[in-house]
Amino acid sequence: MKAMKIGVLGTGVVGTTIGSKLVALGHDVMLGARSATNEKAAVWVGETGKRASHGTFTAAAAHGEIVFNCTAGTGAVAAVTAAGVDNLRGKILIDVSNPLDFSKGMPPSSMFRGDDSLGEQIQRAVPEALVVKTLNTVNAHVMVAPGQVNGGDHHVFVCGDDGHAKARVKEILHAWFDWKHVIDLGDMTGARGCEAYVLFWVRLWGAQSTADFNIKVVK
Amino acid sequence: MKAMKIGVLGTGVVGTTIGSKLVALGHDVMLGARSATNEKAAVWVGETGKRASHGTFTAAAAHGEIVFNCTAGTGAVAAVTAAGVDNLRGKILIDVSNPLDFSKGMPPSSMFRGDDSLGEQIQRAVPEALVVKTLNTVNAHVMVAPGQVNGGDHHVFVCGDDGHAKARVKEILHAWFDWKHVIDLGDMTGARGCEAYVLFWVRLWGAQSTADFNIKVVK
Repeated sequence: MKAMKIGVLGTGVVGTTIGSKLVALGHDVMLGARSATNEKAAVWVGETGKRASHGTFTAAAAHGEIVFNCTAGTGAVAAVTAAGVDNLRGKILIDVSNPLDFSKGMPPSSMFRGDDSLGEQIQRAVPEALVVKTLNTVNAHVMVAPGQVNGGDHHVFVCGDDGHAKARVKEILHAWFDWKHVIDLGDMTGARGCEAYVLFWVRLWGAQSTADFNIKVVK
Repeated sequence: MKAMKIGVLGTGVVGTTIGSKLVALGHDVMLGARSATNEKAAVWVGETGKRASHGTFTAAAAHGEIVFNCTAGTGAVAAVTAAGVDNLRGKILIDVSNPLDFSKGMPPSSMFRGDDSLGEQIQRAVPEALVVKTLNTVNAHVMVAPGQVNGGDHHVFVCGDDGHAKARVKEILHAWFDWKHVIDLGDMTGARGCEAYVLFWVRLWGAQSTADFNIKVVK
């Protein structure tokens, strides 16, 4: 697959893990933050090499042919709004964010009761972007290395309103990250489900000896 | 295992499915409803035979050495409150309810944002009962016949504040319903996770060809 320009919004563990994987695959990755001088982003660029750069959310969105949203849930809508409708128009925006509310400490609660979702809010904020929700149900390490859990025999989920964009994201999940099993949850309201799941993930994490786990749907 | 007297609160699909399975195992089951003359309960008793009876929530709780709460989420706290602190004191109360809000139609939203749960509300309503949350993450058919999904190779979850009661419920899940794999989510706050999961279950259901599915946690 040809090298692409990719924007990654968010400088946390998810953003830098996905960014580093994409750089390793040969893509040109710009990490976006609120500030063009974000220190974590600058450190990441120094560690990651010449295909890595950083800038504002706006600059990263303009840079990307495809854009990943890896911001914290409480700042996600503000981040894609700052990225800008014009910079995301017609582009696939892969939303990895989770609506976790840490205002009362750990474990977090959710921003929603299953009556809305970040995926939908983000799609409404940038209506001409092709938003596809995925990867939010596993930790950053598993997102880019699913084969390290049960030999890759487990599931990741996608949802979104644009069928072609979802099909392209399924290809990306397979080709870039080696995901073998993808379940399509339908339109973007499916995000109400896969985002709610993360409250369960937190409890499973507490019950396991590792955060590197996932679920396999069986019939 | 010896025959027991069991109370089942709720006359819907979950209550009657669990009640019928328990009768088939030789237990004496009283189905409880708000009214002592509940029609669905009367029909179930007629179909199920001499070990089946029905009555009020209060009567069913008094009858049971163990009590299952299979009421709808929006009525669950009222049901166990009606069942009565005195009738549930020191008894295992297996809570199968889900906090689904159907007031805006399908698919449902949740009563909570992961900041509380029915399991916790029920434990607070009847503080001297030994509440254990389980089975709420699968449909009624799978609850009592897990072997029909993937040969039984998948997980059910338990949580609750009393360790001895949880251990007993794990035995019950295995001995009565043939569950082979149980994950302990810790104290009753774990219900915030396994109840939130059901919003995800609804979306998985939409993506599968059947409601007879479950998840297997893999590492």
